[in-house]
Amino acid sequence: MARQPKPAITSSAVHDLIRHRWSPRAFAPTPVSASDLASVFEAARWAASSNNGQPWRFIVATSADTAAHDAAADCFNPRNQRWARPAPVLIFALTRKLADNGSANMHHWYDTGAAVAQLSLQAEALGLVVHQAAGIDRDRVRATYGVPDDVDVVIGFALGHPGDPEALPEELPGREKEPRGRKPLGDIVFAGKFGETAPFAK
Amino acid sequence: MARQPKPAITSSAVHDLIRHRWSPRAFAPTPVSASDLASVFEAARWAASSNNGQPWRFIVATSADTAAHDAAADCFNPRNQRWARPAPVLIFALTRKLADNGSANMHHWYDTGAAVAQLSLQAEALGLVVHQAAGIDRDRVRATYGVPDDVDVVIGFALGHPGDPEALPEELPGREKEPRGRKPLGDIVFAGKFGETAPFAK
Repeated sequence: MARQPKPAITSSAVHDLIRHRWSPRAFAPTPVSASDLASVFEAARWAASSNNGQPWRFIVATSADTAAHDAAADCFNPRNQRWARPAPVLIFALTRKLADNGSANMHHWYDTGAAVAQLSLQAEALGLVVHQAAGIDRDRVRATYGVPDDVDVVIGFALGHPGDPEALPEELPGREKEPRGRKPLGDIVFAGKFGETAPFAK
Repeated sequence: MARQPKPAITSSAVHDLIRHRWSPRAFAPTPVSASDLASVFEAARWAASSNNGQPWRFIVATSADTAAHDAAADCFNPRNQRWARPAPVLIFALTRKLADNGSANMHHWYDTGAAVAQLSLQAEALGLVVHQAAGIDRDRVRATYGVPDDVDVVIGFALGHPGDPEALPEELPGREKEPRGRKPLGDIVFAGKFGETAPFAK
């Protein structure tokens, strides 16, 4: 299935990888190759992090192992299972609360966001798509995979080749066609005082 | 000054934007153009976020306004001021604790990490470099810019054209030459159980 293009309507030019990345829910059943899997995690691995602490960890289940894939899909909230279960690769991002020296790392979620962003852009570079879900059963992830207490369960996501949006159930085909939107640049970039738009962002 | 290349030694291929991005501390005094500034924040703007909540906010100070730039530099910890103060653009990333519907957003730091990652990769695409600092005086940022209570101060960073590492003080020129390193892929990508390396990551 060809990827559904949905480029961001940007107010200034950004790199195509960033402009074209979006979060479709329609995945083809085609497996993701081992080399593509290694590549997307390699991109995550090279993200920046506070003191190079690299708090991110990932748990991966592929449709090559039906039982493992089912167990992963069961960790998504029921509504998210509608699009996650058909995806060939399901992933949970986790993050260590403590730095290697035992001190609290206040940036552990922040750094993990950077790693998944790099993973998602590398997926885009490979013609793959990612859809993330905050709506997961964190206790179930913890129990299923034996996640230690000093590690937070952050998010779940599906990875795969783009699929047919019309094959999604209920209202989801329509949601795939909604335009992408973001707050205006002037609402997020300030100078001098919080809330005062920076001159170049007007 | 030509950019100092320091490509990641990757175990599988990743896109050049991701491979070449690193975090030098040496910045040229050359200003960053308004269009480049708009472009890097545009890249941040289009990051993915939980429920498209876009919790990220940014405060920017450029060397075109000396007083504003000084005030921003003063918010970095003294050791970080050594490399931050010479940089032409200083930025603080902030994040809203609550979603637009008033509920707590547990992914506000995570989402902001994705936005700054996209900003950093767009900087790379434009020949600019970014160096982040967890070591900032958050209370001073809050007071200087009137940051509301429902917004967290996450991180500071410098943005600019690459400069001469030898012009940095003390031990910093040497640190710029250190090889880049990351944990092995097998230490961060698991399958079945937390801590058990995924087959494709071995």
